[in-house]
Formats: sequence, C-alpha cells, structure tokens
Amino acid sequence: MIEDKTPQRTSISQLGEFGLIEHLTKHFEIKNESTLKGIGDDAAVLDFSNKKAVVSTDLLIEGVHFDLAYMPLKHLGYKAVTANLSDIYAMNAKATQITVSVAVSNRFPLEALEELFAGITLAAKEYNVDVIGGDTTSSQKGLIISITAIGEANAEELVYRNGANPTDLLVVTGDIGAAYMGLQVLEREKQVFQVNPNNQPDLDNYTYLIERQLKPEARKDIQGILKALEIQPTSMIDISDGLSSEVMHLCKQSALGCNVYEDKLPLDPQFISVCEEFNIDSTTIALNGGEDYELLFTIKMEDFDKIKGNPNFSVIGHMTQASEGIHLVTRANTKIALKARGWNALQEE
Amino acid sequence: MIEDKTPQRTSISQLGEFGLIEHLTKHFEIKNESTLKGIGDDAAVLDFSNKKAVVSTDLLIEGVHFDLAYMPLKHLGYKAVTANLSDIYAMNAKATQITVSVAVSNRFPLEALEELFAGITLAAKEYNVDVIGGDTTSSQKGLIISITAIGEANAEELVYRNGANPTDLLVVTGDIGAAYMGLQVLEREKQVFQVNPNNQPDLDNYTYLIERQLKPEARKDIQGILKALEIQPTSMIDISDGLSSEVMHLCKQSALGCNVYEDKLPLDPQFISVCEEFNIDSTTIALNGGEDYELLFTIKMEDFDKIKGNPNFSVIGHMTQASEGIHLVTRANTKIALKARGWNALQEE
Repeated sequence: MIEDKTPQRTSISQLGEFGLIEHLTKHFEIKNESTLKGIGDDAAVLDFSNKKAVVSTDLLIEGVHFDLAYMPLKHLGYKAVTANLSDIYAMNAKATQITVSVAVSNRFPLEALEELFAGITLAAKEYNVDVIGGDTTSSQKGLIISITAIGEANAEELVYRNGANPTDLLVVTGDIGAAYMGLQVLEREKQVFQVNPNNQPDLDNYTYLIERQLKPEARKDIQGILKALEIQPTSMIDISDGLSSEVMHLCKQSALGCNVYEDKLPLDPQFISVCEEFNIDSTTIALNGGEDYELLFTIKMEDFDKIKGNPNFSVIGHMTQASEGIHLVTRANTKIALKARGWNALQEE
Repeated sequence: MIEDKTPQRTSISQLGEFGLIEHLTKHFEIKNESTLKGIGDDAAVLDFSNKKAVVSTDLLIEGVHFDLAYMPLKHLGYKAVTANLSDIYAMNAKATQITVSVAVSNRFPLEALEELFAGITLAAKEYNVDVIGGDTTSSQKGLIISITAIGEANAEELVYRNGANPTDLLVVTGDIGAAYMGLQVLEREKQVFQVNPNNQPDLDNYTYLIERQLKPEARKDIQGILKALEIQPTSMIDISDGLSSEVMHLCKQSALGCNVYEDKLPLDPQFISVCEEFNIDSTTIALNGGEDYELLFTIKMEDFDKIKGNPNFSVIGHMTQASEGIHLVTRANTKIALKARGWNALQEE
C-alpha cells in the first residue's frame, strides 16, 4: 500500500463556528465547584459563594508574543494558559476558570487548532481549571489568543501589590532569567536552521532553559506552601516582564524603595554557563529577562525564620523608605539605581 | 498664525505598555459594589456576595468583524462593549464589569486608540459597568479587540437556553433586520466613495438602519421590564447571528421544535422600505441578518396577557415537540423548514 505522506489538513471553514467550538471543547470537563455552567450558553455561570473572585486577561499575538518557527502549537496553548494563571496565583488566589478565544488565518488547518487546544486542555487539567467559554474566529493574519483567567480566594488571603512595608523582606520563588536565555538559544537555532535546514541541533546542554521558555509552569504551589508556613505575604506580583520591572511595580504601588542584592539572585547553573557561552552578563538577564512566571513577594521581617533555607524561596533584598530609592547592591558592594529594561510589546522594531 | 492641518499623531510606542494602559484607563471610575479592585494589580478583585457571576467573552478582528472604512473608532469601541453586554443580559443578569484587551498595528496613532477608548468609556458609563482590566499590545496587522463581560444575578433569576417547554410562547424584543440593512447601505456608500470620493452621501433615509449597525444598544432594560411584569422567561438568548440561528439554538438546547410566524416578525418601516429599494426579501433578512442585539426568549402561555400589547415585545411563535420540527409559517400559511443562514466568521471568502 502506498502511504499518504501529506499531513491531514481539514479546513476549519468546513466545520463552521459552532461546529468548531463544539469540536474543540468537547473534552473539557467541569471540575470546580464554583463552575455552575460552562460552555454552551450566552455566558458561563459561576458561584463564588462567600469568596472573592479575581480576574485577569491577556492577549497574545503571533509575531509579537510568540514565533511558531520554534514554538510548537501544543506548547503555545499550554504556555498561554500558565502565563495567565500566574496572574491569579500572584493574588495568592486559587485559579478556577479560564475563557479562551482564538483567531486564526486560513493557513491554519483544523489539525493545528487541535494541537493548540491539546495544550490548553493539558494545562487546564494540570492546573485544575475549567474552560468555561471562548470564541473562535478567523484572523487576517496569524494566530491570536485571548485568555481571561478567573480565581477565588478568601478576602483575608488576597495579596495586592501595594501592601509592602519598609523593612519587609523581598522574596522570589524558583530561579530567574532561564526563560529568556532559552529564547536566545531557540533564536540561534532558528538562524542556524535557516542557513542549513539539514543541521540537527544538539540541545542537550540547554534543556532546562528551553523548557522554561517553551513549557513554563505557573506557581500554583506557592499559596499552599506559604499557608503551611503560616506566612501571609504583604505584597505580591508575578514575574512576567522581568524582575526589575516587577520590583519597581511593588515599590511604586507600595510607595517604597528597595535594595536588591546581586549575590542573592537565584540563578540556575545551566543559566549561568549559557550566559557565559553567549558572553552576556547573567545579572542583566536575571533582572530584565522576563517570562519566568515566578512570584515576587514581600514578607514581614519576623517571618524570615519560617522561610530560611526553604529551597522554594530566595530572599533577594529588603524594602526601604521611598526616599532611599530603588537600588541593586552589586557583588562589589556598590549601589546602582535599578532600571526596568523589561520587554515592551509596543516597542518599535 | 498658520494652522497645523496635520492631525495629531503620537506614536503609541512613545508611551510604552504601562504608560499606555495608564493613559487610556485613567478616566475609568468604579461604580459597582461588586468591584473591590479594578485595574492596577495582577488581577481585579470582585465580590458577588450571595449572587451568581456570569461571564462571556468575544474577540473582534478588523476585516472580519468590522471595517474601519465606515466604522468610526468611537462607535466601534461602543459597539464592542454593547455586543458583549448583550450576552450578559441574555442570561437575565445585570452586567457589572468588563475587561478590554486591544492590539493595534503601528499604523494606529495614540489618538486613534483614544477614540476607541472614548467609545468604550461611553458604553461603560451608559451601561454602568466597570472596566476592571485589560491588555494593550501591538498586532502584526489591523486592530484586534477582546472583551470579557461579567455580570451578576440571583440564582433564581438566571435564564438558560435549555429551559423552554412545548407550548411556550416565543418572544422577541424590539425589531430585527435593521442592523444588517444598515451594513448594506454603508457598503454601498463605501463603493460609491471609492468611485467618486467627492460625492456627498445623503443618508437621511437610512438613519435608523445606520444607527442600528454603527451604534447598537444592548437590552439592559428588559430584565427590569420583565421583573415588573412578573414574568420569568423559561429560556433566553441574544440575537447576534440572526433570528433563525438563535431560534435553532433554543430549540436544540431545549430539545423542542418551533413555529415562527412570518407576519409576526417585528420590522421597522424604514427597514421594509430599504429592503424594497435593495430588492431584497425583508423576511429573509429579518431571519438571517444578525447583529440586532435584541433578546429572544420563551415564556409560559399563561403569561401572554402580561405581555400582550407591550411595545417592547412581539410574540412571534410558539414552541412545539421536537418531532414537529422547526418551521416558518409564511403569510400564505405554508410551513417551510427554518434554516440558519446566519453570519459565519469562519467562512471562506
């Protein structure tokens, strides 16, 4: 028998809008008590009972936020969800629902959308959130994804950006900078591929960095860990645009200054060695890289003992009065003003 | 003094993402009790107390859902909001919050985004909803708007698509078809303009149709009117894709059939005369036109007296057993199967 080597391509227009939604969403199960009605009516119906609801939304555009040359669609779907959930976790809340809207140009066959939704479904399953609504439509160019994430929390558990106090300790989860260096590795491979498509890349030395870029996880676990430690953060934000940018948000909204210590920044060994390979200063990337989806928060000084030595957390500095400014204290013990050089989706090329 | 005739054009990249959000959202006031925290943190915080929350989302793409050749940006912003709120009202709920995400290519100056947000702000004010979040970014092509609308209702007030019973009456608010004919008028004017840009269009005979297309209102008032009449609809949906399509949704989800009477369809006199001018069958347009943002609902037969003669409502038919099918009963008293020829955002050109 002769095998058909052409990949299957089903035109999405064959299904129509309602057929497409039904096809893509039929595997979604409702798992949260707060979801009374998911997809299938004019609106979803939710019941937060005596809890507060939190809502965050993001718009992702091909060519601006992602490059399908090295971002597999399934990974993209997964990342689109986790990036949004990260905002919910940054409120110290539990993520419970998402809506997912997708627009695609007609160069995308149904099978591509299925891949994207496979990633979305996997993330929804891993993070235990219900997909309660969405929209599918065509675009004039490229792939567009819009996700709204919803969560719930008791009022007293919620953590805002503006609650930090002077002398609070500044804490970051996990390690930082790796997602950005993963992107640099992938960009380099893309260029190599363009020159020689037959070149087989050896990415063994970059697996952690690439995973941080292509399949980032959101810190669903932190709320529970902090609760078990009996720590209520005073302020919190997620690290999507880079540590510097987020430190400045916390400082601005809490009307405080801050000292961040260079030698306290949590860096993965693979990150450090690849920065050396690329001849890039690791501190600059750790401060400005973005897309880490770790959490940055402040705690009262007296909570230090509870967190000390915990592998999930690094104390990287402390808050100060606003008049003292926002500084990085270098390894050489000089103070330099912290600047946000984070990623800007609006910058002109 | 020499006047500068060049319209002001400020590049959005000058402001950066955070500056842009701050600039565009600074006029938003919080008016709903359920909004505890709006824009400015990782997520908004809402308190629905003992009510249920309803959530709906839409994605609007330039060139697919709207044409900026005849859709002024302020109207577009207004319509993007009302179209979404319509889904909340179709649950018999009160709309309370929206999130607004916008992506624009660099051909849009800041002033264009300000116009768009002026329309969004106006709609938010008119409909008393709080803008609680959003995202602004650049696009590769054109303008993209994603809105998530949120509302609240007591559990017993909520109306789903699947609650209709056989013998229930089918009711529609306002009149239908006008928005579609408004679009036809605008398309014709666009073509005239392309041939002769100096031609001044005389649109006096089309004002109602054009307003229905460019500045549609959502039926915020219906919930209160029905409550005052002591009518609880058994099922409800909003008319965005065309009456036929929505009738079929109600039938399918309630597992029923339906008879719709041609002579009962509520048509505006201007709509009828312009259909004649365009030599188009008005019933076909009324059934399939779309974008009316009226509400279609079913009520118990015994509620007929409460609604009879009310100018807000037209009883256009009644539900039947599923086995009887879904039909239009024509003026000539023949029964023809109703088909959904409504607008499909995924169809190939």
